[in-house]
Order: sequence, then C-alpha cells, then structure tokens
Amino acid sequence: MENNNDWRHRLYVMIFQSDTVAGRRFDSTLLLIILASLVIVVLDSIDSVHQNYADVLAYIEWGFTVIFIIEYGLRLYCSPKPLRYAFSFYGLVDLLAIVPGILALYYSDAQYLLIIRIIRMLRIFRVLKLSPYLKQANYLMSALRGSKQKIVVFLLSVSTLVTVFGTLMYVIEGPEHGFTSIPKGIYWAIVTLTTVGFGDIVPKTPLGQVISSLVMITGYSIIAVPTGIFTAELANAMRGEQLQHDCPICKKNSHEHSAAFCSRCGNALFKKME
Amino acid sequence: MENNNDWRHRLYVMIFQSDTVAGRRFDSTLLLIILASLVIVVLDSIDSVHQNYADVLAYIEWGFTVIFIIEYGLRLYCSPKPLRYAFSFYGLVDLLAIVPGILALYYSDAQYLLIIRIIRMLRIFRVLKLSPYLKQANYLMSALRGSKQKIVVFLLSVSTLVTVFGTLMYVIEGPEHGFTSIPKGIYWAIVTLTTVGFGDIVPKTPLGQVISSLVMITGYSIIAVPTGIFTAELANAMRGEQLQHDCPICKKNSHEHSAAFCSRCGNALFKKME
Amino acid sequence: MENNNDWRHRLYVMIFQSDTVAGRRFDSTLLLIILASLVIVVLDSIDSVHQNYADVLAYIEWGFTVIFIIEYGLRLYCSPKPLRYAFSFYGLVDLLAIVPGILALYYSDAQYLLIIRIIRMLRIFRVLKLSPYLKQANYLMSALRGSKQKIVVFLLSVSTLVTVFGTLMYVIEGPEHGFTSIPKGIYWAIVTLTTVGFGDIVPKTPLGQVISSLVMITGYSIIAVPTGIFTAELANAMRGEQLQHDCPICKKNSHEHSAAFCSRCGNALFKKME
Amino acid sequence: MENNNDWRHRLYVMIFQSDTVAGRRFDSTLLLIILASLVIVVLDSIDSVHQNYADVLAYIEWGFTVIFIIEYGLRLYCSPKPLRYAFSFYGLVDLLAIVPGILALYYSDAQYLLIIRIIRMLRIFRVLKLSPYLKQANYLMSALRGSKQKIVVFLLSVSTLVTVFGTLMYVIEGPEHGFTSIPKGIYWAIVTLTTVGFGDIVPKTPLGQVISSLVMITGYSIIAVPTGIFTAELANAMRGEQLQHDCPICKKNSHEHSAAFCSRCGNALFKKME
Repeated sequence: MENNNDWRHRLYVMIFQSDTVAGRRFDSTLLLIILASLVIVVLDSIDSVHQNYADVLAYIEWGFTVIFIIEYGLRLYCSPKPLRYAFSFYGLVDLLAIVPGILALYYSDAQYLLIIRIIRMLRIFRVLKLSPYLKQANYLMSALRGSKQKIVVFLLSVSTLVTVFGTLMYVIEGPEHGFTSIPKGIYWAIVTLTTVGFGDIVPKTPLGQVISSLVMITGYSIIAVPTGIFTAELANAMRGEQLQHDCPICKKNSHEHSAAFCSRCGNALFKKME
Repeated sequence: MENNNDWRHRLYVMIFQSDTVAGRRFDSTLLLIILASLVIVVLDSIDSVHQNYADVLAYIEWGFTVIFIIEYGLRLYCSPKPLRYAFSFYGLVDLLAIVPGILALYYSDAQYLLIIRIIRMLRIFRVLKLSPYLKQANYLMSALRGSKQKIVVFLLSVSTLVTVFGTLMYVIEGPEHGFTSIPKGIYWAIVTLTTVGFGDIVPKTPLGQVISSLVMITGYSIIAVPTGIFTAELANAMRGEQLQHDCPICKKNSHEHSAAFCSRCGNALFKKME
Repeated sequence: MENNNDWRHRLYVMIFQSDTVAGRRFDSTLLLIILASLVIVVLDSIDSVHQNYADVLAYIEWGFTVIFIIEYGLRLYCSPKPLRYAFSFYGLVDLLAIVPGILALYYSDAQYLLIIRIIRMLRIFRVLKLSPYLKQANYLMSALRGSKQKIVVFLLSVSTLVTVFGTLMYVIEGPEHGFTSIPKGIYWAIVTLTTVGFGDIVPKTPLGQVISSLVMITGYSIIAVPTGIFTAELANAMRGEQLQHDCPICKKNSHEHSAAFCSRCGNALFKKME
Repeated sequence: MENNNDWRHRLYVMIFQSDTVAGRRFDSTLLLIILASLVIVVLDSIDSVHQNYADVLAYIEWGFTVIFIIEYGLRLYCSPKPLRYAFSFYGLVDLLAIVPGILALYYSDAQYLLIIRIIRMLRIFRVLKLSPYLKQANYLMSALRGSKQKIVVFLLSVSTLVTVFGTLMYVIEGPEHGFTSIPKGIYWAIVTLTTVGFGDIVPKTPLGQVISSLVMITGYSIIAVPTGIFTAELANAMRGEQLQHDCPICKKNSHEHSAAFCSRCGNALFKKME
C-alpha cells in the first residue's frame, strides 16, 4: 500500500512537474502528440487529402483521442486532489481536448473542435524552460493591464465611429453598390478603418468616396492611439521603479530616480565622502 | 405649490443626476431604450427583415420616439432653467434624437438619421461610473491637444502628397485604367497611402506601378509620424502628473507630487511664512 | 525718380512681406487665386465637366496664367535684386507655375503640370501666421534628420527583402498566376510588405501562400522599425536639452537633466540655503 | 619569390581592404558589376525583353559569371589563409554567387538563383564609407536582440490566434466561399490580421463577417505590440550610450559618458590610486 502510494507520487511528479528528466521527457512527448494531432486535423481539412486518406486519418485521430483519455485518467488517478485538478484551468482544457474526439464519432464536423487542443500547447513554456519568456509576457500583460481603461475608451470610440460611418455609407451608397444593410455598412467601415481594405465592397458614388477617404485617413491616424498607449505603458513598465532608498533622516523610502536630496525633508540622501 | 416644486426637484434629481438609486435606474433604463432603438434601425435596414416585419418595426420605432418625446418634455419641465438645458450640448442632442422619428412619418429615409441617437450613449460613462475612464479619455484628449499643431502640419503634407500623386497617376495611367479624373486619382492615392488598398483601381502601366510603389513605401513609413507624435505626447502627459513648480534656486521644474524640497539641490520648494 | 523708387519699395513690401495689412491682403488674395486655379485643373479632368465646360475652363485657366505672369513681372520689377529672386527657390516655383499654362496652349496635356502650383501654397504658413506650426514642422524635421541614417539602413533592408521575395515569388508562382516578370514580383512584394494588399496579383500555389504569409508577417512586424526610430528621436527632440548651468567651480556647463553635482569636479551645482 | 609575395600582398590589400585608392576603386567596380548582373537577371525575366534579347543577355550573364570566377580565384590566391576565407561568411557568399551561373548552362531556371548576388551588395557599406550607418544598424540590431524574447512570445500568440481563427472561419464559411481547407483559412487569417487584405478570399456569411471584424480589430490593435516593444528597446539603446558604472556610494548606475563624479551624490566614481 505504501509502495502503491509511492508509485502514485512518482507518477504525479512525472506527469505534473517538469523538474526531473522523466517529467521533461513526458511533457515533450505530450507536446509532440498534441502537435501531431493538430496537424492531422489540419491535413484532414484539405480536400485532396481527405478523399484519399480519410479513413487512415480518422483512425489516427481516434488513436490520439484514446491516448489523451488515458492521460486524463492517469492525471485524475495520481493527482493528490483529483477534483481540484479537474476543475482547474488546465484540467478543464485537458477534458475539452478529449470531448470533440468522442463527438466526432457521431458528428463528423465536431472534429474541428479538436483545434481547441492548441490551448494545451501553453505547456510549451514550461517544457522549453521558457520562464524568462513568460516574464516577458508578464511585462506585456502588465503594460496591457495598465492601459486597460484607455483601451476601453478607444474601443468605444471606434465602435461609435464605425456605426455612424457604416450607416452613413448605407444611406449614401445604397444596396445597389453592395451596402445592402447597416450591418454590412458597419462591416465595410471596420474593413476600411482598420486599413485592411478587402475590396469586396467599395464606394462608387463621389460622395461615398469622399466619406471613405475620411474613414481611411481617420483609421490611418488613430492607429497611433493603441500604439501610443501601449508604448508609453511599456516604457513605463520597463523603466520600472523609482529609487528605493531610505532617507537617513525621515525614512521616506521612494524617490525620483535621480534624487540627491529627500523631497520631504530636504536632507542629502547620500553622504559625500570628504 | 411647495409640494409641486418639491416633486419637480425630485424629478430633476432623478432625470439629470445619477447619484441616487432612482437616478441611476432611470439612466440605465434610458440607455437600454436608446440601444434598443438603435438595434431596431439597424435591423430594419436588413432587406429580409424589412420585408417581413417593416410594419412592426415602424410601430416599435414610433413607440420609442414617443418615449423620447415624453422624456424631452419632462426634462424641459423639471429643469430649473429650461432654456439653458435646451441649448446645452445634451439638450440639442436630445432634441435631434426625436426629430428624425417624426420626419420618418413623411420621408421614410429620414429614419436613418435616428442613428444620431448614438451620441446619447455618451451618458453611458456617467451611468456605469466610468469616471476613471473619462479621466483616461482626458489623458488621450490632452495628448491630442498637445500635438494639434504637429497633426495639422502632418495632414497638410499628406493632402499635398495625395494631390500631387493623384494627378501624376491620372496623367500616367489615364481613364482606360480606372483613373477617370484627378479626384479619382486623389481617392486612389488616399486608398494607397493609408495602406487600405481596396484594389478597385490599380495601376497597370510599369511607370504607374513604380509611382505606386513610391506611394506605398511613403505611406508605410510616414505612419510613423502620427504614431510618434502621439506616443511622445502621451508619454509626456503621463509623466506630467508630477508637480509643475520651479525650484526657486536651481529652476528644476518637475518634482514628485508631494515634494517639499527640491530633489536636485535640497532647497525648500515653498517659502515657509514665519 | 525718388518717388518712383519709393513706390517700388512700397510694392516690394506688399508683395514680398506679410507684416503690413496690404501685404497680408495681397498674400491672401494670391493664395485664393492659386487654390481656385488648382480647383479648375481638377474640375477640368472630370469627363462630364470637361465635355460641357471645356472652353469656359480653358479661358479661366488662361486668365489665371495671365494673372500669374503679371505677378511674376511685378516681383521681378520691384525686387531690389531681381536675379537673386529669380534663382531663389520661390522664384523658380513662381516661374514653373506659369510655364505649363503657356505650354497648354499648344499641348493640352501640359495643363496637368499646373498642379505644380500646389508648391506655391507653401506660402500659406506665412499668411495664416502659422509660424508656431512651422516650429512644429522643424521639430518633425529635426527628428527626421536625426534618424536619417537609420532610415537609410531600413530602406536598404526593405529593398533587399523586396527584391529577394519578388524573385522567389516569380519563380514559384510564375506568369500563369500574374507574376509575369521579376519587376512585377517586386511590385507585388512591395504591395504586400507595406500591408496595402490591392489583390490584383495574389498567390495561388500553396508554397506561394506560405511565402506570402512570411512577407505579410514581416511587413506587419517591421513597421515597428520606422515608427520606433521616429518616436525615439521625437521624444529625444521634445525632452530637449540637458541642464544648461555652469558648474560654479570648473565651469563645465552641460549636465544630466537632474544632476545635483558636477560630473567632472564633484562639486555641488547649486548652493543649499541654510 | 620575395617579389612575388610582395605582389600578392599588394593584391590582397587591393581586393580585401578599402583604405587605399586602388582598394576603393576595386570595390566600387565590383559593386557596379554585381548591380549590372542583377539588372540583367531582372530584365531577362520580362517576357518582351526575353523574346528579343535572350541570347545577348545570356552571353552577358555568362561574362559576369566568368568575371566572378576570376575574382574568386584571385581572392583564394592572394589570401594569406585561403581556407579561412573560403569558409568565412563572405567567402561562401562569393562562391554561391558563381554556382548558379554555371548551373544555368544546364538548367535555365537556375539563373534566378543569381539573385543571391544581392547579398554581395552588403559590401556597399564598406565602399561608401557607411560605417556610421553600420553603427546605426547595430543600434537597430541591439534593440531587436533586446526584444527577442518579447517577439517570440508575440509571434507564438499570433500563430495561435491565426490557427484558431482560420479553423473557425473554415467551419463557418466552408469551401463554397473560398475557405477550402484549414491551411487556406489560416492563410486568410494572416492576410486579414496583418491588415493586408488582398480580397481574394472574403467572408460571405453574416457570422463570418462578425468573426472577420474581430480579427481585423485585433490585428489593428496588436500592431501596437511589436511597435511598442521595439520603440521602448530602441529608446533604451539610444539612452544607453551612457556610462554603465555603479557609483560606489549611492549605486546610481548610468552617468554621462565622461563623468568623473556621481551626479547624484557627488562622490568620485573611480578611486584614485595614491
């Protein structure tokens, strides 16, 4: 019984952690299998491949699903707190990576849900010892968080702009030039404002082209807004912290980066050696 | 009479302010109605919906207009200074949100003017207690104001560029390749310079493609200008939270927000009255 | 004779300067005439206008040309150093603004050269008292100058990239998919790298689409380069100068912005009041 | 024999260095020949040119190849360590610039590999005394290196996004609207996310257009990420010209380039040996 527990713990270390050789090997293998399973889904969507190898690919995909089911079972089995795992973020993703494989037996379209397995690839950061990369992601995240409010204001403005311009173009150009409804007009306004410009719907009337020019120049200019917001926040996050040094007199402990004197009591922060 | 005045004041607080429970509930309801009214306009523009539900939608829209008329009347009635309200920004917008509804009875196209109601959505900031967001909008606004002159210079340069390139392309490509007039050439130059690239008009001659390449690389490069301007200003505005006060001795002019002494020379920033 | 000289000087002040009321009125009128002359050129290029009003517009344009000839004559006459004016930048532009008008009498296509008159619009800065705007333009210019070398390196890299990718696509896709020659391939690479994306030439083969994806992601990413260069330079130019204050001991006179002590002799830059 | 060695050395200086007049003249000539050889390749790809001058161009190209063979031989001959040159970066490029010319005798398509000669153009920096430009390139490079990790995180996120959206669009739109397979869907997602927008494949269903709008707004917004990363790093790299040396007392760690004393605490940065 001891022995059994011990074995379960060893399995736990291998499956859930990546500090041991076995653990890293397990994670690497898992990642390769996930990647292979994604490639199969992608290949199966290509018509010429599907017509020739549909059966083979279905068997392989089914095989992967079985592997994932076994893996999920092992994770539940060896986890000290199975329920906590099952309802954790990773636990739910692991479950979601199986379900479509089973559904695909009955509804063939369900197999595309398998693409959800891409989320499992997040483990790649752990495997490839990319923790410094994750720290960089944290930088980016903190910059994004810092600019959240500005981004909401920006997106609200863009939505308003797009609605107004979309309606305007619908009224001006009308259904005969492809603007068949206001939602279509809004779609066109988004395509134009973001400078994507598919060209599936284009203004034909002179007035419509003037308004379009306005939308394009607006879109071209206000791209400065998210960029500016993010850059300023990131520069902030990277310049980082103020000087952390206790004033020898009043103990105030954060100062401007290049302060020579305490801004609260006016005493020199650093003694000058004579 | 007193009583009546009291009731009017209570109504005023509810309609115009959003500090009380009733006030916030009123504003929320109003926002929902505005949103619903916008959705109706949008839905009505879709052909398949229009053919089946035109009557129903017209009735609903008319109902919304009646509600807005009543609301406008109440605002005029309970406002202490009705005229001042009527000619305020919000007062005019509230009026404009009604007029197209009435016009729509006679000219069916007028209903699209109802989209102006989207401006009323600005109240959303008040309702959702988004004042910190508004402060962020102020940040953005102040950055835009600070860079106004640079933006005017930039837009003038872009206009000149676009006019010259548009004329050039009209001369080079000519009407047989879609450049039917100089304004069309200018429209094409805007589409290209802003990197939208619809593809409805494209250069066909080798020389035209060389010029196009020039326009595209220019457009790709000078997008750096608005972005750079805005980013630099925004970084300034964000740093600018600091105390703006010249040190009386060394003239250093930006300090921590709560500084009492200059961080460069250690002298008191403010004279203490004895 | 004296009188005549005096009159010439008064004319000179009016035409060449904009400090007096008469001078500003002259410049404003001139700008309006230039603008009107440009509008005429643009209008004349529209087919429906041309067919109906070709004669009228030609007369008007000819009238403008006469006005500009007279103006040029007056400038030459009243200028103290006529030759210096004639070969100055503005002098040459003023001449160039006339020539196409005369040529147009013989070759009708020459009229489009009239668009060169847009350069004369540069005077607008002087008329509208936009000198603070010009200062802003100087900011931008200094930022551009500061980053000139980086921009050359960037443009050389882009040219290389575009040549290599264009050739690659020509080999892969071939003439049957619109890539009829290497120059065409380069043109396509520019259209794609700058994220314009006309869609007149698009990759059809799977390999071509993979390469395209590479080009697009490259283009999407390296737009960061000009933007980053310009933003960093502009921020530099705006943050401006270092502390200009002579060290009281060694007279070194430029220091870090927040220096409290001289970096050469170590003495305090500012006396602390006791 | 001495004499021979001397001659070899003189050749070495001329071919490999660019400090002498002869050396610079040699490099300039070489660059012109490389450029001419590239122009020939490009011209030969144009159909109308090819049909008329194919023979002439082939002879010229072959002539260039002979010149390059001779040059390569000379380099090997006069280099003090021929093997080290042969396996250096430039040595391999010089070899690669010859091979396709020889292959082209047998396989006509191989001539397009000649475009690899563009890499030889890198020598242009040496010839035109562009070393300050190269320093600028180093700036850019160091900024890119500094942001490498952030860029990997960014590219991984973009890849994931593009895969998920591409699959989604394949399921929603289906082969009848051009989304014939998941790879095609991913290709479309890249075209759209990078705001290129060819317009060869466009969403037709309402749901597809909603998802597209999401992709476009995402692409429009996250362009801020590479831009922000690069700008912040570049600003860092440009500031970083400063002396990186901790003050022994206050630990302030960036100083003016010629600082002898810390600008914050006034203490000597470097101990003077007595």
